Amino acid sequence: MLNTPPATATGILEAIAFDADGLVPAIAQQHDAVEETLATSRVCYFSRSRGRLWRKGETSGQVQRLHELRIDCDGDALLLLVDQTGVACHTGRRSCFYRAARDGELIEIAAALIPPEALYPSG
Amino acid sequence: MLNTPPATATGILEAIAFDADGLVPAIAQQHDAVEETLATSRVCYFSRSRGRLWRKGETSGQVQRLHELRIDCDGDALLLLVDQTGVACHTGRRSCFYRAARDGELIEIAAALIPPEALYPSG
Repeated sequence: MLNTPPATATGILEAIAFDADGLVPAIAQQHDAVEETLATSRVCYFSRSRGRLWRKGETSGQVQRLHELRIDCDGDALLLLVDQTGVACHTGRRSCFYRAARDGELIEIAAALIPPEALYPSG
Repeated sequence: MLNTPPATATGILEAIAFDADGLVPAIAQQHDAVEETLATSRVCYFSRSRGRLWRKGETSGQVQRLHELRIDCDGDALLLLVDQTGVACHTGRRSCFYRAARDGELIEIAAALIPPEALYPSG
């Protein structure tokens, strides 16, 4: 997950229960701490649609800087505390979770801050 | 996800991209709002290890009351805002994400609030 894992990262990797495809779900949260203790790392995911590593923001510029990586009790999920540049969602919203179920309907609870075409200019 | 889905829940279900096993990752967060607007629901998951529906807290009593359900941009993940009774983790911790990667090592950043055997008494 880190750009250049330290030599001591082996124990951390061994604690993660990767699935048969070598993947693990990762949850990214905006952290609100002021300090940037681990701020030299940029978050990298594996894109199943692209079939390769995906350093978030490489096209859009909306990068995530790693604040802290946490592992859950049985090692099959990660929580990433990040500092999000701009918006996190390809729709131009701060969060991908902008639809809420209320009274049996899906309601949009956040508007796009920038048009998606500004994130992914063609040509 | 709701105990008794309203008839109008069909549209919400159709927006969720269940995988080939009929499952979808769900992220549960403790919400800190005072109001209990949707407080009549209890959170239910599917337990892959048990192979059946799992109403969280049915054994331990550490139930999750649904505050709001949100769906992400492409419908393949849910965010549950919940009110957690007691601890969420089977280890007796408030959160399952109690191990953080710091300086190349996994550090425990939260202690158990109650012994696990108090959650799951035998016999």
